[in-house]
Amino acid sequence: MASAVEIDAMRRALQLARRGPRGLNPQVGAVILSPTGDVLAEGFHRGAGTAHAEVDALSQLAPDAARGGTAVVTLEPCNHTGRTGPCAQALIDAGVARVVYALDDPTAAAAGGADRLRSAGIDVQNGVGADAAEELIRDWVALQRTGRPHVTVKWAQSLDGRAAADDGTSQWITGPAARRDVHVRRAHADAIVAGTGTVRADDPALTARAEDGSLRETQPTPVIIGESETAPDAAVRRHPRQPLFYATHDLPAVLTDLAEQGMQRVFVEGGPTLASAFVRDGLADELLVYIAPVLLGGSRLAVGDVGVSTIGEAQRLAVASIENLGDDLLIVARPTPAHDDAPPHVSPEPSGAGDEIAPAEPARATARENEGDA
Amino acid sequence: MASAVEIDAMRRALQLARRGPRGLNPQVGAVILSPTGDVLAEGFHRGAGTAHAEVDALSQLAPDAARGGTAVVTLEPCNHTGRTGPCAQALIDAGVARVVYALDDPTAAAAGGADRLRSAGIDVQNGVGADAAEELIRDWVALQRTGRPHVTVKWAQSLDGRAAADDGTSQWITGPAARRDVHVRRAHADAIVAGTGTVRADDPALTARAEDGSLRETQPTPVIIGESETAPDAAVRRHPRQPLFYATHDLPAVLTDLAEQGMQRVFVEGGPTLASAFVRDGLADELLVYIAPVLLGGSRLAVGDVGVSTIGEAQRLAVASIENLGDDLLIVARPTPAHDDAPPHVSPEPSGAGDEIAPAEPARATARENEGDA
Repeated sequence: MASAVEIDAMRRALQLARRGPRGLNPQVGAVILSPTGDVLAEGFHRGAGTAHAEVDALSQLAPDAARGGTAVVTLEPCNHTGRTGPCAQALIDAGVARVVYALDDPTAAAAGGADRLRSAGIDVQNGVGADAAEELIRDWVALQRTGRPHVTVKWAQSLDGRAAADDGTSQWITGPAARRDVHVRRAHADAIVAGTGTVRADDPALTARAEDGSLRETQPTPVIIGESETAPDAAVRRHPRQPLFYATHDLPAVLTDLAEQGMQRVFVEGGPTLASAFVRDGLADELLVYIAPVLLGGSRLAVGDVGVSTIGEAQRLAVASIENLGDDLLIVARPTPAHDDAPPHVSPEPSGAGDEIAPAEPARATARENEGDA
Repeated sequence: MASAVEIDAMRRALQLARRGPRGLNPQVGAVILSPTGDVLAEGFHRGAGTAHAEVDALSQLAPDAARGGTAVVTLEPCNHTGRTGPCAQALIDAGVARVVYALDDPTAAAAGGADRLRSAGIDVQNGVGADAAEELIRDWVALQRTGRPHVTVKWAQSLDGRAAADDGTSQWITGPAARRDVHVRRAHADAIVAGTGTVRADDPALTARAEDGSLRETQPTPVIIGESETAPDAAVRRHPRQPLFYATHDLPAVLTDLAEQGMQRVFVEGGPTLASAFVRDGLADELLVYIAPVLLGGSRLAVGDVGVSTIGEAQRLAVASIENLGDDLLIVARPTPAHDDAPPHVSPEPSGAGDEIAPAEPARATARENEGDA
């Protein structure tokens, strides 16, 4: 159980946590309460290499100021000596009598802080404000589990699955409501991924923009995958965040590298080839398919080779929601394993076309080229 | 105004009308009431070349039995001498004092019956039961207006617009609920249309079946369009209705011919080439797109050339409904002219591919080949 004062302090700690950056480390906030419940200090984590939230708060106090008090923290104090010492020990050293925290630490390396505190005779209460804390660092927690960012693959298509008319024109397939939705979602991503082909063909800005065209407050880092050069005057080079260039087809390696840079949510908007590759490689956690109520016909398909050669291999989707956006439809879905009642899975025989392409474009080690405007 | 007895009689007349066949002539029912409101006779129209409903009812009575009575008819008595004489004159000759009918006759040739009755001093009331009567013969009325049957074009596709996997397998793309829906709709059509390519590739039965595989009570006439031969042992040749074969690509001519045979509702289920041709030629009144939540990729597209070469020519659709059918989605839509806010319409330049195909498959006169199993 937590007192009303502790619950208020947790609410404040969550506010503090949000001031920190999304990145390699989770966003964490902390409040130190005196034995009588007064707020003595506040702290939050400002990113990898800086003090953890508890230590940030304690650092504002004289050595004995927290003695007998309570530390309220949004994540279990760590038990890990990294670039900073273990927070559990810092709290023990500070002499706090009680620790209230929201979420258990999900990482093997850092877990065990609560046990260490209890062994030192400190009263420990977990689970206070856990839902809000989990919501805040959900992407970070998922990344700890999977080792790679959450991947959303988005495309817009006509009802008949075309990304553009036969001559390549595609402006305004979908309407303003759908476009607005895309930009809001871009702003919630850490990275926005496109293929070099799309960058060359469409010269997209890859920014998250408001309806008046102005930049939204948060911007995803543009990530360009593929082997062709991006022109020196490409719009993406004027992006407020420095673009990352990966001259590779090894998508897992790219994702691992993005994870190592603390990117937790990736928005793939990069054209049919790249979208299909993410699906084919089983790397798409979520699909956003914006469908305009038009027929186009022709050869410009929104989805290419997804690794299905016969119907038993069909990539089934669990549809999470279907939403009307103006005249358009947004289908949010998650790729799933084949149904149990599906025909027996035929082990994938690479098609002739695949055989031809494979040697020409071998998977290769990630060679990240950090190009900037500078 | 109509009396309660007349309204009851109209309800009965509508029941009688339904006993007649859908076809060249509308379904019509008639009830003759005595001056005191007793039912003297009932009639309905049994199809082109047989007596109209009013005459069918009167024919059961002695020459003067209807004198001073009321005729209750679901359609305005005709003023047209065709294979039968004008019904208006027959009612005048029978000496009825009053005529109550539901719908005004929408055909120029037959209209004017009410005026003729009034000129003869008969009390005429229209509009009684008009909604139900219109519902009953809606397709016939539409055909009088357009000169061709109502065309529904149906296809099933993966979310990414494929009709089959790359190896041609397509069994159970959509689930049982979607398949059941298709068969119910087939049973409501007068004709079901497929291309010779689809008949050869898939050997469809083109019947309307119940869930246990048994035939439904009403069956559409199978119509096969195209120039290749249909095999002597093709499943469609065992259809309960004799198939019609049209060795042509002239779809308007086929529709005109079907209209001349009294077919009012046509269900096009004939594969991507035919579906696209109906859309391209502006002959689709309604689209039924069953979408399975799967991705297939590959070359087997559900929609081919719909005559769009640039985005300004996109075939826009007015979506009438979106329905969940098990895991699948049914989108019912109507092709519409381009939006006013769309980019200026570029006059269609035939693509190179179109140029190559055109001379090889010239539109030609309808050559209907009435093949049967006999």
